[in-house]
Amino acid sequence: SGLVHIKNPHLDSMEEDILYHLDLGTRTHNLPAMFGDIKFVCVGGSPNRMRAFAQFMHKELGLAGNGEDLADICAGTDRYAMYRAGPVLSISHGMGIPSISIMLHELIKLLHHAKCRDVTVIRIGTSGGLGIEAGSVVITDTAVDSSFKPRFEQVVLDDVVVRSTELDKDLTEELLACSKEIPDFPTLIGHTMCTYDFYEGQGRLDGALCSFSSEKKLEYLKRAYDAGIRNIEMESTAFAALCGLCGLKGESSHTPTL
Amino acid sequence: SGLVHIKNPHLDSMEEDILYHLDLGTRTHNLPAMFGDIKFVCVGGSPNRMRAFAQFMHKELGLAGNGEDLADICAGTDRYAMYRAGPVLSISHGMGIPSISIMLHELIKLLHHAKCRDVTVIRIGTSGGLGIEAGSVVITDTAVDSSFKPRFEQVVLDDVVVRSTELDKDLTEELLACSKEIPDFPTLIGHTMCTYDFYEGQGRLDGALCSFSSEKKLEYLKRAYDAGIRNIEMESTAFAALCGLCGLKGESSHTPTL
Repeated sequence: SGLVHIKNPHLDSMEEDILYHLDLGTRTHNLPAMFGDIKFVCVGGSPNRMRAFAQFMHKELGLAGNGEDLADICAGTDRYAMYRAGPVLSISHGMGIPSISIMLHELIKLLHHAKCRDVTVIRIGTSGGLGIEAGSVVITDTAVDSSFKPRFEQVVLDDVVVRSTELDKDLTEELLACSKEIPDFPTLIGHTMCTYDFYEGQGRLDGALCSFSSEKKLEYLKRAYDAGIRNIEMESTAFAALCGLCGLKGESSHTPTL
Repeated sequence: SGLVHIKNPHLDSMEEDILYHLDLGTRTHNLPAMFGDIKFVCVGGSPNRMRAFAQFMHKELGLAGNGEDLADICAGTDRYAMYRAGPVLSISHGMGIPSISIMLHELIKLLHHAKCRDVTVIRIGTSGGLGIEAGSVVITDTAVDSSFKPRFEQVVLDDVVVRSTELDKDLTEELLACSKEIPDFPTLIGHTMCTYDFYEGQGRLDGALCSFSSEKKLEYLKRAYDAGIRNIEMESTAFAALCGLCGLKGESSHTPTL
């Protein structure tokens, strides 16, 4: 049917669903009218960047009106920012798995309540590159954890549930094909490692704490490269797991900045 | 000496330290002049709330000038917001452990470079209350993880390091004493549970995914209450661990909203 799969039997019996961190709700907003025709959702960490992306999409799609002053749909909260340009929604998610998870739970319910069909979700974020040219784009085939395993360990109450982090293979290939139509746009497919920590977790030597040597860092990053990892960021495993479970075509692509 | 402890031998040999996510640096900014007299740092999730708190402190301290238009010291980035009112710094940290960790690494280095002494860091956040009156304040004595254990598991490269999450006992008592001077200000000391997930991790029945029953949820929360936990949030274990390791007097106090 192309609809979003909500896997929560409690939701049907609720009279109202408040998407608290988006400042939206089923009673206060007509979600099907506002979002029913959305086909693409692009998400990234920074609110300013996601506004700039919506402005860019507004121009690219040749939409009427001034793309410069798009309204923040979540203006009532400063947790996330959301903009739309035609069928494209552009949302910020902050930094790290807990932050993107809250947004994705509420986004998935939004798409469900709005009765959206065949939605593609793409994370467009920055990342640290691994043995690749700075400025190139990594399209993630599989998100892996800090042990290089394709899994997302989710704590449910106090149980640990292991979830798959595979992304949509057709979408990966489609995005790669798109990149080839643009000259000088270095793009590759690779694994993306997702960590809970930016400094100690990604082998940085310039945090407030650092207990490892430069050699130990390089040895870890070399092992990661040999395992097929081409970039490192902080959201992809949770993103892949949630999109996969809810039947959303998901893809994660990143521009390494380091 | 009251100085901040940086536990990173690499830092001394760096010619420049860029506090990337705060848009500050040792070459671009005179950090001792800007921050040398800071004695208190208050941190919380939302940028708007931390601006409002700085404005409140500006008034409370009777400082000269208009407290209404305090400048965001981190205006060059939208990752975090930072305001100061006299000796008090007010900084947002976003949601979740990864997000607060990035901020704390850079804040700790900032206090070190600025040669600050005897700094107290207090997290003032919202949280979900457990068997207590809504609107009361929980002052955390110990932050615990989702298994109710007083520990923070930090992945360093691919090793797991376990860190203590005890907070400053004197500060806990001092804050409780302050609360008693204010009429009708329900305040208590208790353990605070820190989770990586807001929906499935905190027993909520209204996420996009929910695989447990209402009974299972209540049973988990009852066990948490019996273990001394009075509220649940998403940053306290990392906050306690990082403050403790770097010699900062740290305290975490929360107003339950649910």
